[in-house]
Amino acid sequence: MVCGMSQVLERAHAEELDAADPLAGFRDRFALGDPGLVYLNGNSLGALPRATLRRLEAVIREEWGTALARSWDHWTALPTRAGDLVGELTGAAPGQVVVADNTTVNLYKLACAALGARPGRNVIVTDQDNFPSDRYVVEGIAAQHGLELRMLDTDIDQGLDAGRVRAAVDEDTALVSLSHVAYRSGALADMAAVTEIAHQSGALMLWDLCHSVGAVPTELDRCDVDLAVGCTYKYLNAGPGAPAFLYVSARLREVLRQPIWGWFSQRDQFAMGPRYDPAAGIAKFATGTPSILGTAAVEEGARLLLEAGLGPMRAKSLRLTGYLIELGDAWLEPLGCALATPRDGSRRGGHVTYRHPRAERIVELLAEASIVTDYRTPDRLRFGLSPLTTRYTDVWAAVAATRAIIETESCESHG
Amino acid sequence: MVCGMSQVLERAHAEELDAADPLAGFRDRFALGDPGLVYLNGNSLGALPRATLRRLEAVIREEWGTALARSWDHWTALPTRAGDLVGELTGAAPGQVVVADNTTVNLYKLACAALGARPGRNVIVTDQDNFPSDRYVVEGIAAQHGLELRMLDTDIDQGLDAGRVRAAVDEDTALVSLSHVAYRSGALADMAAVTEIAHQSGALMLWDLCHSVGAVPTELDRCDVDLAVGCTYKYLNAGPGAPAFLYVSARLREVLRQPIWGWFSQRDQFAMGPRYDPAAGIAKFATGTPSILGTAAVEEGARLLLEAGLGPMRAKSLRLTGYLIELGDAWLEPLGCALATPRDGSRRGGHVTYRHPRAERIVELLAEASIVTDYRTPDRLRFGLSPLTTRYTDVWAAVAATRAIIETESCESHG
Repeated sequence: MVCGMSQVLERAHAEELDAADPLAGFRDRFALGDPGLVYLNGNSLGALPRATLRRLEAVIREEWGTALARSWDHWTALPTRAGDLVGELTGAAPGQVVVADNTTVNLYKLACAALGARPGRNVIVTDQDNFPSDRYVVEGIAAQHGLELRMLDTDIDQGLDAGRVRAAVDEDTALVSLSHVAYRSGALADMAAVTEIAHQSGALMLWDLCHSVGAVPTELDRCDVDLAVGCTYKYLNAGPGAPAFLYVSARLREVLRQPIWGWFSQRDQFAMGPRYDPAAGIAKFATGTPSILGTAAVEEGARLLLEAGLGPMRAKSLRLTGYLIELGDAWLEPLGCALATPRDGSRRGGHVTYRHPRAERIVELLAEASIVTDYRTPDRLRFGLSPLTTRYTDVWAAVAATRAIIETESCESHG
Repeated sequence: MVCGMSQVLERAHAEELDAADPLAGFRDRFALGDPGLVYLNGNSLGALPRATLRRLEAVIREEWGTALARSWDHWTALPTRAGDLVGELTGAAPGQVVVADNTTVNLYKLACAALGARPGRNVIVTDQDNFPSDRYVVEGIAAQHGLELRMLDTDIDQGLDAGRVRAAVDEDTALVSLSHVAYRSGALADMAAVTEIAHQSGALMLWDLCHSVGAVPTELDRCDVDLAVGCTYKYLNAGPGAPAFLYVSARLREVLRQPIWGWFSQRDQFAMGPRYDPAAGIAKFATGTPSILGTAAVEEGARLLLEAGLGPMRAKSLRLTGYLIELGDAWLEPLGCALATPRDGSRRGGHVTYRHPRAERIVELLAEASIVTDYRTPDRLRFGLSPLTTRYTDVWAAVAATRAIIETESCESHG
């Protein structure tokens, strides 16, 4: 439909977009306990799928409460089975993804494994705007192993520049560790190009997919990625602190060794043999006993996204973020907000960020009005738009409320 | 009550013991889905407390489903709050225990931290009968850091001998890593004596409490222990793959550094600062986002044990294991079973093990009769007796069934 600018700004237009949304029905697949809530923070913690509620109930009451330890007969397969589903979401053929530990621990394991495979190289490249845990993990590894940590000076609104990566990576570089979608700006990196730059210097490439999976399809195998990690509690909707995943390319799976040798990565686990002998498959990158509740929730979350389809998921994500920016141009930019996310849809992920000097206060006031967004240092207001749960009317309501808050606050501060 | 041997062997005697058991009422605090099941495997996976069922329901539906990311306002305190309860169970004053990761990852973090605090020392001492993950973790660390791994030659039925520890530990030893209760035999180590031996050589002492916590009280502070880890899914009843805990003595908390630098161990986490700056408290030994469901279940499991009381818990555990051995003397030893657990109550934990050449088959046949025990290589049959859920009649039924199976199998193999 074609309509003029003033019509685009009407709530009725958002209602039309919702009515025409092919994924609109998926919202009913979630147990949203507070129907009045406008929740634009699925990039922090995704909503609870009804299928997950039922699955967790069955795991808790029947598999744990009734069957007890006998359930290990089928639980042992869960981390790699859920991993294969996450592989489908991220462009990885089966056998390369396992659900295990949290993102931080997975980053540590894979970064150490990469260094072991590149002896003699003493540089790790990361990005000063990379997520804190990603930076801290490689800072720690560099400190402990006497390596150089090379920090890319990234534009925190526009994201990673491939040219700067090329300038930083050389024949001393063992590992390049970056995020696919930047946590503050939502800027999307060019996975294929950056991975190729790392490979041209013989370095291994590790991608963090925390802000991608469930919003932006990736093609890990096609991009020839070496290593990846990601969390499952954002757009994958697996719940607070559900285990993360890790990907190791089949090319490297047999070559790499991770540093934390545990019984869940042992070849014949229940032989409990005298020496560590790592499993042949991707399970060799697991550690100890996995969270069964969390891994079951990952399986349900991944299934729901696969049912929606990666194409429709990305298409809706782009439409949601595009619509928010359209409203923002009309209502927020004139009030001193500045878009801090790439305007080009092909260069952004699933959330949109604005800069405003009073961002933290605006987020508080939105929350008081039952509109949940979040604040990131130093002056960022993030709107997370989740393809399966966010409505266009939610976007409309959030931007309208932000405008009203800034106008009121502005009056008050001058009053 | 005094009774003759023949009376002790009657089921009626087990019923009398159940009737006199001050902890008997705690069994009703668990959601046992199959009332006909004789479950003697709580040392592998403990039962589901009703309080945990309710708590998980609230965490899933309300805290996750309804409040969503806003729940992080109180979730962030959960790992140290649950840690303090586990501290109460293990003899640690507040501020020294955090619930995080799994046992394997915690062993890795604390072992690396210990080595960092003992530069120039190149030996790790452990026990060839230590739990596989415990051995593999230090094997991996030794391999990666070029250290010597010194394996104690332990009697796998009688457990750790303090004299052998003394002979193995010297001025080159950085770390002694041992289990308090042996996973196969249930033999209980002398925590105070062994810790003192490690300290006399200037080594740090790391105890694994997986098979102790919830069955055998420990006195971590009083024994001057440096480091400890343990899982929560056995006698602590926190569910499959619930997060583990770790203890770092207040003496060492500020000195030690763990190797996996993550955002949940950062001093001012949401400032998301440019450099890693570890938190002052025990949180500095956390890594990334913790499992909220699992940590909530740890809190409930610990509360239930504290309500029962550590004294009554140990007293019942000793009576249960003693009763099993009494029945075993009469019924199993004459049939070729050999007790593989110390006969002296002060030297055993919460499970009792028998050797029998057909142990694996016996465990299968018991399971077919709805009696769950477990098998451990090479020829061990383990009976796990959980103070809050195991009845004396369960013990009676299990030993009687084991006797009947061995008699029948024996006839068949000669038939």
